[in-house]
Amino acid sequence: MHLQATEAHNVWDNTIPPALTVAPGDSVTVATQESSGGQLGRTSTADDTAELDFGRLNPVTGPIRVDGAEPGDALVIDVLDTQVDDWGWTACIPGFGLLADDFPEPHLRIVSIDGARAELLPGLGVPVVPMIGTIGVAIPEPGAHSVVPPRRWGGNMDIRQVGPGARLRLPVGVEGALLSLGDVHAAMGDGEVCGTGVETSATVRLRVGLEKGAAPRTPVLETAPAARRTGAALVTTGIGPDLMTAAKDATRQLIDEVVRRTGIDAADAYLLASIAGDLVISEIVDVPNWVVSIDLDRSLLVGL
Amino acid sequence: MHLQATEAHNVWDNTIPPALTVAPGDSVTVATQESSGGQLGRTSTADDTAELDFGRLNPVTGPIRVDGAEPGDALVIDVLDTQVDDWGWTACIPGFGLLADDFPEPHLRIVSIDGARAELLPGLGVPVVPMIGTIGVAIPEPGAHSVVPPRRWGGNMDIRQVGPGARLRLPVGVEGALLSLGDVHAAMGDGEVCGTGVETSATVRLRVGLEKGAAPRTPVLETAPAARRTGAALVTTGIGPDLMTAAKDATRQLIDEVVRRTGIDAADAYLLASIAGDLVISEIVDVPNWVVSIDLDRSLLVGL
Repeated sequence: MHLQATEAHNVWDNTIPPALTVAPGDSVTVATQESSGGQLGRTSTADDTAELDFGRLNPVTGPIRVDGAEPGDALVIDVLDTQVDDWGWTACIPGFGLLADDFPEPHLRIVSIDGARAELLPGLGVPVVPMIGTIGVAIPEPGAHSVVPPRRWGGNMDIRQVGPGARLRLPVGVEGALLSLGDVHAAMGDGEVCGTGVETSATVRLRVGLEKGAAPRTPVLETAPAARRTGAALVTTGIGPDLMTAAKDATRQLIDEVVRRTGIDAADAYLLASIAGDLVISEIVDVPNWVVSIDLDRSLLVGL
Repeated sequence: MHLQATEAHNVWDNTIPPALTVAPGDSVTVATQESSGGQLGRTSTADDTAELDFGRLNPVTGPIRVDGAEPGDALVIDVLDTQVDDWGWTACIPGFGLLADDFPEPHLRIVSIDGARAELLPGLGVPVVPMIGTIGVAIPEPGAHSVVPPRRWGGNMDIRQVGPGARLRLPVGVEGALLSLGDVHAAMGDGEVCGTGVETSATVRLRVGLEKGAAPRTPVLETAPAARRTGAALVTTGIGPDLMTAAKDATRQLIDEVVRRTGIDAADAYLLASIAGDLVISEIVDVPNWVVSIDLDRSLLVGL
């Protein structure tokens, strides 16, 4: 099964008809547009970033209806493969990004991607580590909702470990789940401080599963053993407009997951989070909601 | 040269007489107390953590006067070695920690440390990665200042990569710098969410250098190639009561460091921070100041 990149939408709206229906356990290949939605190309200049139509930004391919998915279930998404294009872009977009006040002028770099290396400047290449910036399910509240902020239902979380080998669990908000994804980056750092990674079009292969009645409070991720810097970790998230609250939510969720998986006391799981969990700002630019993650080496939980 | 753990103080006060004077380039061995200052021991129980005298917490050994150090200089500290004790402790201390409201009861674990492994619970050991929780110079403002919050001058930063092989640069605030350190952890995660790592006594070997007129705005760190998860990174910091402001400060400082080291444009350094820098909450418990760090693989800067 394959979804083309033209099957895209730019808002979350649970009345958008499914572009595809799958059964739990099915694999699907999804083509995604780069996050300008075709407004930027290989020959674009900085001036073009100042004229972006924000309403066309961050298209997501979908939605994919999952048979049998109901509110309260967990959608379990295994990222099997992510193939990126041979070019991408990264930019200072006026008014956007953590240091928008310091960098008011538009600035654009077209990045060539040769497979293993994304070249920002001559002689300055960063390793290609593909990740899916936006992946989420439809929001139960009616109407059209901006695709920019992430929410409990996932969306534009910009968690850099959501790449090949990762397993993401999202709460299902509406019947059929209605999964969509896009905004693939060839590389991104935790925080995505300027507001963009190496933005690129891509082809993503996913397997979609379902756990009845197992919706997590916020998205939960298991990272791949080869994940840059993190390795095979259990990652929980807090999502919202206040970093402190998000940090607390992520930590509470990690404690709950550790208790559920191992049976140790919550107070001990809290100590474990403190001595071995790493608290990270996954994104701090997708207004108005930030993502704080805490990740814990999964091997610590083996045998408990 | 050696400083004993009894040469300790519990507040920052620039009138505390030096316990030792060194010249730039000297190495010194410093013994440090665990962070309860002897109030907890191998046989302590949870009840003891509820009765801690906060005025005796977090003793630091020092101060060490550095000949020739003046306000505006950078103190350059190379951590050569850190030997930890064979036991430590970690605890929920009532009223302290990120989730103090969720965990109002005292809880204590005495942790046995066998060299490579710190055992939190039977069958649950975390790797020993020694780090110095508190390391800083005297504050220029007169009077006694709590040792709990970190500040521009360092102190209780709880940055987990400040261990063997790391190079820390601190701004000098007073003549002679007056360096002190303590609060060594056998292991700690970014954030130190419950408020403690594996608290232990230790013997630290340092080399102290000086760069005239080169004071960084906030502490800057170069991590060891073997640093857990980070590798050889350039790490800059933002320190203060607001996580968002601290994240901006850390990012600005990284941009400045990259520009200074490579000569690339600030806007390109900002893009680089976004596609390859990782924004981390180093500590979120040392009231009222939190530390946000951003780290960048140093190898990316080679050859620019």
